[in-house]
Amino acid sequence: MIDDLDAIRDRITDSFNKQTIMSTIGASIVSVELGEVVIRLPFREGISQQDGFVHAGVITTIVDSACGYAAMTLMPKEARVLTIEFKSNFASPAIGDEFIAKGTVKKSGNTIMITTGEVYAHTVSPENNDDEKYNQPEKGKLVSLMQASMMVLHPR
Amino acid sequence: MIDDLDAIRDRITDSFNKQTIMSTIGASIVSVELGEVVIRLPFREGISQQDGFVHAGVITTIVDSACGYAAMTLMPKEARVLTIEFKSNFASPAIGDEFIAKGTVKKSGNTIMITTGEVYAHTVSPENNDDEKYNQPEKGKLVSLMQASMMVLHPR
Amino acid sequence: MIDDLDAIRDRITDSFNKQTIMSTIGASIVSVELGEVVIRLPFREGISQQDGFVHAGVITTIVDSACGYAAMTLMPKEARVLTIEFKSNFASPAIGDEFIAKGTVKKSGNTIMITTGEVYAHTVSPENNDDEKYNQPEKGKLVSLMQASMMVLHPR
Amino acid sequence: MIDDLDAIRDRITDSFNKQTIMSTIGASIVSVELGEVVIRLPFREGISQQDGFVHAGVITTIVDSACGYAAMTLMPKEARVLTIEFKSNFASPAIGDEFIAKGTVKKSGNTIMITTGEVYAHTVSPENNDDEKYNQPEKGKLVSLMQASMMVLHPR
Repeated sequence: MIDDLDAIRDRITDSFNKQTIMSTIGASIVSVELGEVVIRLPFREGISQQDGFVHAGVITTIVDSACGYAAMTLMPKEARVLTIEFKSNFASPAIGDEFIAKGTVKKSGNTIMITTGEVYAHTVSPENNDDEKYNQPEKGKLVSLMQASMMVLHPR
Repeated sequence: MIDDLDAIRDRITDSFNKQTIMSTIGASIVSVELGEVVIRLPFREGISQQDGFVHAGVITTIVDSACGYAAMTLMPKEARVLTIEFKSNFASPAIGDEFIAKGTVKKSGNTIMITTGEVYAHTVSPENNDDEKYNQPEKGKLVSLMQASMMVLHPR
Repeated sequence: MIDDLDAIRDRITDSFNKQTIMSTIGASIVSVELGEVVIRLPFREGISQQDGFVHAGVITTIVDSACGYAAMTLMPKEARVLTIEFKSNFASPAIGDEFIAKGTVKKSGNTIMITTGEVYAHTVSPENNDDEKYNQPEKGKLVSLMQASMMVLHPR
Repeated sequence: MIDDLDAIRDRITDSFNKQTIMSTIGASIVSVELGEVVIRLPFREGISQQDGFVHAGVITTIVDSACGYAAMTLMPKEARVLTIEFKSNFASPAIGDEFIAKGTVKKSGNTIMITTGEVYAHTVSPENNDDEKYNQPEKGKLVSLMQASMMVLHPR
């Protein structure tokens, strides 16, 4: 089972590394568990909207990938994942040093997986250690909530 | 009235130019009319998901801005615009030479504006002239449909 | 082809008549065309929220069925339709004498159909004739906008 | 504070009792806590779609009210609540003896509240006691997930 999870992590890391938008914006994977994937995005120049906050579309980019890969952890290894649709509510402006997106599978199906995602903004400071930040991202400020459908594309 | 529309276009162009994500991905404004804004994104490296298509989050970034600025054309000039929420359905993979996002206001309100957005993929070829592409983006292939709420932030 | 459309209309009318919620709230089919279905709901007691307006869930009930049946017009005759998800924005309170919901297919697929729906409130008066109301429901007041995914359930 | 919660419960019960659709479909309030409201709907004739399952719009009606009233528990007492928009994913057909909708506030704001909702189907049997069902509705089968924005209407 550990082996399986390792193989899943490898597949997801490989796929993530092919998402060129991720290196463009500076996002990386924090963790991959069965049904749950966490992605981080440190603030940087070049990803903002007009007020200097991170653009809602960039926030959506990382949480869409977190949801899609969370779904992929529960798919057969030959299957591919495709976003059918998503819906995001924005709870507060994306202001912070680092944004942590968590995607979770709520309902696993043979054709469609229902996932939810959350993005939290964190401030980097000596008091904020990384372990806490990544294990309990919800201690940050809620930026965005997502509900998304992912399609399982089985090979023909 | 022409003057007003010119002033609106200036404000929106200024704001768009401050969205640093737009130059990062290579998007630009095509047109600004009252209640309707069109944005274009040529395909390039660095904006893709794992299969080489444009990432759903990038598609969402341009159509969110198109919807937000469409809403802004109908706001008082001192007001700011903020995305409350959006919902996107993905009709086909984002494959093409150029992506055209159109945002339209469906219901203008004092506090909230309801907008819809569409993104179409186009192939660039000698037969496809630009005027047609930008005036009738729906002649391309439908990639994404959005429904979004924009908040009108009045100055205090 | 006329025969086909007649057969489609019969199937949809049969299915609609099995939706017991429709007679409970008093809704009926106005028209069935390929890719477009219109449903009407006259105001009555017993379908309101706390202010006496029609409950958002009731408005959603008729437009969900309009979208689902619009999708069904484009499905093989043995297939069944199932709502995967929908999203509704509410543009104004559901006040009026009659509510007209139109569902339209935006993207037809083998597994999933993307549909949009609109609900308009109309006032019944000697000047408002029915033909206009049903052929151009958008002359009423926009109450709700829907974007929905319908699944095509093929028989095994 | 107990007094306050009692007063909140009274206001919400009064409002719920004015929602005539609730008695039409047979729904009732189970519990009202700060930021969380639970509503139940026993299966009955007259609320179904074409296969005899509860119509998605009816499921949406109860969870919309659960979310709206959850938001109302955190509003000033003179304020009214209005659904701006909602999004529902359907995880499984609404088959069961009783449906339990829980609405929860995720982000409380002065103008807008972001809520999430869940509907679970339960089977009534001697082994299933009510306390468990209402305190842990998630032990049932997930039918629907909602994400909704509620507007706070302050008196002028």
